[in-house]
Amino acid sequence: MSFFTEMMQQISDRGRALMSARRGEARTAKALQALAEALLSNRGEASSVARAAELLICYAAAPREEREGFLRCLAVDFGPDQARIDAAITAYQANPGATTAMALHRAAEPRRQDLLRRLNRAPGGTLALLRMREDVLPLRRAEAALADLDADFEHLFASWFNRGFLTLRRIDWASPAHVLEKIIQYEAVHRIESFEDLKLRLAPSDRLLYAFFHPALADEPLIFVEVALTDAIPQSIDRILDGRRTELAPADADTAVFYSISNCQKGLAGVSFGNFLIKQVVEELRRDLPQLRRFLTLSPVPGFAAWLEAQARDEESGALEPTEREVLAPILAEGADRAALLARDGTDADKLHETLRRLCATYLVRATTMRGERGVPRPLDPVARFHLGNGARLEHVHARADLSARGAAQAAGMMVNYLYDLDSIERHHEAYAERGEIAMSNEVRRLAKPQKALRDLAVPG
Amino acid sequence: MSFFTEMMQQISDRGRALMSARRGEARTAKALQALAEALLSNRGEASSVARAAELLICYAAAPREEREGFLRCLAVDFGPDQARIDAAITAYQANPGATTAMALHRAAEPRRQDLLRRLNRAPGGTLALLRMREDVLPLRRAEAALADLDADFEHLFASWFNRGFLTLRRIDWASPAHVLEKIIQYEAVHRIESFEDLKLRLAPSDRLLYAFFHPALADEPLIFVEVALTDAIPQSIDRILDGRRTELAPADADTAVFYSISNCQKGLAGVSFGNFLIKQVVEELRRDLPQLRRFLTLSPVPGFAAWLEAQARDEESGALEPTEREVLAPILAEGADRAALLARDGTDADKLHETLRRLCATYLVRATTMRGERGVPRPLDPVARFHLGNGARLEHVHARADLSARGAAQAAGMMVNYLYDLDSIERHHEAYAERGEIAMSNEVRRLAKPQKALRDLAVPG
Amino acid sequence: MSFFTEMMQQISDRGRALMSARRGEARTAKALQALAEALLSNRGEASSVARAAELLICYAAAPREEREGFLRCLAVDFGPDQARIDAAITAYQANPGATTAMALHRAAEPRRQDLLRRLNRAPGGTLALLRMREDVLPLRRAEAALADLDADFEHLFASWFNRGFLTLRRIDWASPAHVLEKIIQYEAVHRIESFEDLKLRLAPSDRLLYAFFHPALADEPLIFVEVALTDAIPQSIDRILDGRRTELAPADADTAVFYSISNCQKGLAGVSFGNFLIKQVVEELRRDLPQLRRFLTLSPVPGFAAWLEAQARDEESGALEPTEREVLAPILAEGADRAALLARDGTDADKLHETLRRLCATYLVRATTMRGERGVPRPLDPVARFHLGNGARLEHVHARADLSARGAAQAAGMMVNYLYDLDSIERHHEAYAERGEIAMSNEVRRLAKPQKALRDLAVPG
Amino acid sequence: MSFFTEMMQQISDRGRALMSARRGEARTAKALQALAEALLSNRGEASSVARAAELLICYAAAPREEREGFLRCLAVDFGPDQARIDAAITAYQANPGATTAMALHRAAEPRRQDLLRRLNRAPGGTLALLRMREDVLPLRRAEAALADLDADFEHLFASWFNRGFLTLRRIDWASPAHVLEKIIQYEAVHRIESFEDLKLRLAPSDRLLYAFFHPALADEPLIFVEVALTDAIPQSIDRILDGRRTELAPADADTAVFYSISNCQKGLAGVSFGNFLIKQVVEELRRDLPQLRRFLTLSPVPGFAAWLEAQARDEESGALEPTEREVLAPILAEGADRAALLARDGTDADKLHETLRRLCATYLVRATTMRGERGVPRPLDPVARFHLGNGARLEHVHARADLSARGAAQAAGMMVNYLYDLDSIERHHEAYAERGEIAMSNEVRRLAKPQKALRDLAVPG
Repeated sequence: MSFFTEMMQQISDRGRALMSARRGEARTAKALQALAEALLSNRGEASSVARAAELLICYAAAPREEREGFLRCLAVDFGPDQARIDAAITAYQANPGATTAMALHRAAEPRRQDLLRRLNRAPGGTLALLRMREDVLPLRRAEAALADLDADFEHLFASWFNRGFLTLRRIDWASPAHVLEKIIQYEAVHRIESFEDLKLRLAPSDRLLYAFFHPALADEPLIFVEVALTDAIPQSIDRILDGRRTELAPADADTAVFYSISNCQKGLAGVSFGNFLIKQVVEELRRDLPQLRRFLTLSPVPGFAAWLEAQARDEESGALEPTEREVLAPILAEGADRAALLARDGTDADKLHETLRRLCATYLVRATTMRGERGVPRPLDPVARFHLGNGARLEHVHARADLSARGAAQAAGMMVNYLYDLDSIERHHEAYAERGEIAMSNEVRRLAKPQKALRDLAVPG
Repeated sequence: MSFFTEMMQQISDRGRALMSARRGEARTAKALQALAEALLSNRGEASSVARAAELLICYAAAPREEREGFLRCLAVDFGPDQARIDAAITAYQANPGATTAMALHRAAEPRRQDLLRRLNRAPGGTLALLRMREDVLPLRRAEAALADLDADFEHLFASWFNRGFLTLRRIDWASPAHVLEKIIQYEAVHRIESFEDLKLRLAPSDRLLYAFFHPALADEPLIFVEVALTDAIPQSIDRILDGRRTELAPADADTAVFYSISNCQKGLAGVSFGNFLIKQVVEELRRDLPQLRRFLTLSPVPGFAAWLEAQARDEESGALEPTEREVLAPILAEGADRAALLARDGTDADKLHETLRRLCATYLVRATTMRGERGVPRPLDPVARFHLGNGARLEHVHARADLSARGAAQAAGMMVNYLYDLDSIERHHEAYAERGEIAMSNEVRRLAKPQKALRDLAVPG
Repeated sequence: MSFFTEMMQQISDRGRALMSARRGEARTAKALQALAEALLSNRGEASSVARAAELLICYAAAPREEREGFLRCLAVDFGPDQARIDAAITAYQANPGATTAMALHRAAEPRRQDLLRRLNRAPGGTLALLRMREDVLPLRRAEAALADLDADFEHLFASWFNRGFLTLRRIDWASPAHVLEKIIQYEAVHRIESFEDLKLRLAPSDRLLYAFFHPALADEPLIFVEVALTDAIPQSIDRILDGRRTELAPADADTAVFYSISNCQKGLAGVSFGNFLIKQVVEELRRDLPQLRRFLTLSPVPGFAAWLEAQARDEESGALEPTEREVLAPILAEGADRAALLARDGTDADKLHETLRRLCATYLVRATTMRGERGVPRPLDPVARFHLGNGARLEHVHARADLSARGAAQAAGMMVNYLYDLDSIERHHEAYAERGEIAMSNEVRRLAKPQKALRDLAVPG
Repeated sequence: MSFFTEMMQQISDRGRALMSARRGEARTAKALQALAEALLSNRGEASSVARAAELLICYAAAPREEREGFLRCLAVDFGPDQARIDAAITAYQANPGATTAMALHRAAEPRRQDLLRRLNRAPGGTLALLRMREDVLPLRRAEAALADLDADFEHLFASWFNRGFLTLRRIDWASPAHVLEKIIQYEAVHRIESFEDLKLRLAPSDRLLYAFFHPALADEPLIFVEVALTDAIPQSIDRILDGRRTELAPADADTAVFYSISNCQKGLAGVSFGNFLIKQVVEELRRDLPQLRRFLTLSPVPGFAAWLEAQARDEESGALEPTEREVLAPILAEGADRAALLARDGTDADKLHETLRRLCATYLVRATTMRGERGVPRPLDPVARFHLGNGARLEHVHARADLSARGAAQAAGMMVNYLYDLDSIERHHEAYAERGEIAMSNEVRRLAKPQKALRDLAVPG
């Protein structure tokens, strides 16, 4: 637990002495609660830094049950003060106005919000709070009080991890090894096996990696994107990751491909940076390489195979025609070596991939859910929701594009390009946000089956 | 307005084009309000960055009346939504609990808080918001709505300028000139005339300067403290600032003197860092120079002369005995050249300075006000309130310590040392915070007149 | 003497103890000589670092006479070993070849060269040796032995300050104050009065400053050039230095003006960097601002007035016609306020300045000296020799261009532009180097008087 | 060939155009020679930078035979000018003195020295010259002319890589990956398998790595040393390299162990930094961790097994007694699995290891060679020569200390500690340098057999 060590180092000798004295008994939920109460009651700001550090250190050292006990205590006992709320309501109703509304706002704030702000003052406090939230996340579904606590974390993190505080850094082969180690660990799309493997994505002049950092988290990336410079639209991930390809001089590239985006901090769930990251990287690249003409992704379609399997099982589904069912049968058969089947060549294979392209386009632009805000339909596919929500356009659909075990299992080998065209991003974004309109190329429009045949593709939210 | 230029540079060409198109008409309060409404209604996060930047740039370029008009509009039209509050109260009262309380909390939040958070996403947004608050400050006394707006700024800044996000940097003669330029500009206690003058406080090995910075503000210091390393307790500011003194090797020093603390950002009024700064600098110095035995200030007594004059005018005052009135008469006489009189030597002068020391000690530890929180008395002197509130102890009182025009006018030449003793800081802080007890040395205790003779020194708050 | 302090800090405690023990007696030429002999006889490399540092520290602390005594001792007693030379000659003549030639080369090397190389191993040694050479320079004219010593310094410095070891840095208002302080101190062409004055040359986006640094000298610039970005050919220095001018956006500039070049280290006399500096800065600017079309200087003509006065005194001189003598009489008259006269407007003034332009062009391209290498004539004017030797072309001649006291006294207000055109630099350089041909624009060619009337303008070297 | 790319990037567009025009024909020894002549004849310094770069790039791109042809041409055709030497000898003999000696010195310098200095001006030139010397090294034994050329390289490198120009950097897990990659590649003593393996030597707080860098070589280390902090004298390398050991808090260490020193640049053969490196690291550690009491190595004994085998073969050898021969027989037997035998426990094993310790001590302190300078004997073992030459003391001799295949093969599992005691380093160094005295502990003195029995251990040089 490296932040633990670091926090300890930054605390004064006296602070450390004080802590170690109490350490033994302090690793229980009860003791943590007492520390929290002391911290909240403390009026002097400076001694509270040592106290905040003490609580975070004891928390980190406590066993799981005690940590969870403390989180429940935060959720239940550090909520809002009901008597104070009642009084504030009375005052507001007697004299409704800005001042009484503000008093009501403050009275209704859970006490733990102030506690979390005070904990954040400790050296290394921000990272410790991210880790604390990682303990909350698995519990929030089952326990309503912890869902409330989780919302408080999210609210504070959204403020602290404000886009204005983030810095974009290019990561390359001259970056510190301990940062690169984290990139290897956090890569979530196309696994990186080793430093040597990572080097292939960083060191060639046609491969770039950009990450957002927050000053309070020093060398912990928040999110990163991997970029390939190419002179053609990429149709498969293998060619992007191929270490033996000929390097392209950046000046000869006309296309920037975002082929992997990974969030790094589970504790930041619900606080989104991907949108900002892609757009800022587009700006950087446009400035440094003004000849680039296209910015697009090479993205997975993680929900496609599951949707396809569901349509195949459902004999009523209007999504599949009989001939399509037949073509697909081999790869949907139980126990089929799907990756091997998808890798085959020949006329049958071409027919299969053409079918897959048609159905994948259909899935992406017709299979929607109502669980979006304000009754506007949204695509089922999470990656599609992300890029379309950013204002990108669904541009190309590629078969045989990811024949890894995972690519075959989740997407039947399909990958797609979303195009980031700065001149239409805003328009697309608004049409999508307001009316659920999906921006797509003519190619995709032709591939996707018409809406009317597919009335039932919208899934209840 | 350098942040203006910087912000412009960080915005994309497209963003800039969009802005300049609207620039002409956009510098009115009405246009700013429209931009603010658009920003709040915007659901897509990324396009909101350009919109936030546009609003901040137009605001910075608008004439004063329009800026003030916009601030009033923020204060009045972007307050909480009363209908939403009423509904939230009804829901809460029907079912009091954490969830309805949280809904109430959110409903009662002024809409402008979210607006300010969105503005903060623009590059350079934090500094722009600090400057915006500088426009609010002169108006908040007279206009209640602007006081509410000001409170929102303070609340957000307290969260964003959380101590955990600040970094301590030592500033020296190898620091960037544009940072040093700001130190010259912001020094509030002992004026710095030029770079050559500043060099005397930075370059010698027995003079140090530390500042807090916030990552979103890059090279704008928030607060700084100047430190002299000495081998004796400093008794006058002249000897500290004397450029011709012999430099002391840091290894030979046993005392660190904090002789000037300056806040840099008016826009951060109410968000206090001084306490943290002094304590962290003490930690740094203890680590680097373990032989240091004393950490103390050489501080002004800004309210002393005014208080003394008031006592002298008040014939009933128990603070001054007749012989004291006589001794003080020359320096309190209208039109007296007080600095020259204080600089004199001789028996009379010694009597004068002894009297001043007695009365200064009395002023600091007996002259209190009730305006503190919870009915606990606090010293009248603002510098005393700051250091005693930090847990320091009033240690020595020096006459003839600051014979500058300002020192003579405000404090009759008096300066004092507050001692930061890490082992008793917490105890002193608590006694002061809870019960208003003032920590003082035996010397000060002996100098100050007894409480009973002085019942009337506590000033109503 | 800051390098002294720095060197002391880098030496170990033990090293320091050892030194201070000997310090008292060690500040004589005799003691320095003994240290030098010990250093040369020392076979172990590491202990020699402490010994080298000791010698340099003692040297720096010694009084001038002792330092000069030591330099003479270096010049005389640390020359080559004659017996060794004789033996090497005998061996070479017996068997002439590469190996015996190399032995002869080594035998003929003065012992002090190895001594200087060993001194350079001390921390801060390079700077200390530069300062040592500054002591040699004033003596080298009068004492032949010191001229030999000086040549050894120059030879070693030319190797250590090899262009491949230099780094170009842009200096701006964010540069460290102690570097800026040195820029102020070293500026040799257009004096800088203060940091505020310097800011005018660094902070505006149309003013740039570049310097060469050597890694062993850390923050000591070797040479720097000041650049103005303009949208026209600059005709006077006042408009360049004018702090109230409107800043030009760099993207709108088409011309880069090198208006001041200063060497910083006297100790590097004879080791030239100006040529490299200008060309590398041209490359930098071309890369960052590809729209720039012209790179030229605005240069002084330091020898013009003296030459003009000499021509005027010489009634035989063919350079001045009678009407020209008449026009020039007022400004050449003894006690004339030349700057005031040059600043006047009107027909007479125009006639004066037209005459000055003609004569200045004549001076620059016709007044030559034979002291160049291999009998090729070179311009009398040192600034002309520098830029023409770099391959630049004399482009424009401006009157009323520098009306400062110095500009009036040395150049009768004249300044000129030398053009750096990368496509013809090499050609110009070779024609100048081989045949003494001066590259000039048609304008200058027309202004300058024809060679034949001026047979006597070439000055014997 | 990364410096190739880098050099290309730093050269101007024009320079590149010029080069590529000539590239085709320029990769022959003949063309390289022509470029070298042109470079030497060039009087203008700036155009020579492009020319130098061109030569280095063409050289790097040329095939091996042409490169070797060029090197021979440098060795033969760019030697000294014999006519010039003869004239200088005549002048010197006519008038022997400093000036004529200097002229002789210059005349006898091979022309290639100036050529190499000019090549060093190109961006990346220093690294290119190091690589060029790597081509010379394998040829210098067989060809006398190339030995002369090699000596010129060594002479220039000794001047350019002067200790005063080197910087010490600590390398840790936050260092750039491309530097760490080079550490892995250059480690010469205890092989590093991967980044994960390297992390064990960098990341724990009780493991440190320091390297010397030269500013012209940016991120190319010259030499590095790996250090372990321990609380006992280390007796085997396994315990040092064990990744599962408990980390020691640096504050609890009393011993710093130098357990691996590796030179990185073959091209710097003969230019030694190890001595400086160890001593500067000792200084660093003493400053940062003042409680350290011991600085010693854990060093291999690479020549021990070969010597032992030679003694065993030589039946006359006085070094081995009959019982020793018997004890050693199993491990010296042909085809024996020496590592396995050395790893055994038990009484016989103890007897074996005791014998090995005795003989190893004897080998180190008695087996000497006369090939040292000035007839002073030196140890046969190269590692012993290095550390004893630095002034270290042979302190302990450990059996079973390195049971790797290499450790068993080269040293029969032995390792030793050399102690760096700053107070006696200089004394030891001088005794060793002057008289060949070997500093050793009483333990070693007792272990080593007496000199008299061993008259024949000194090997003719």
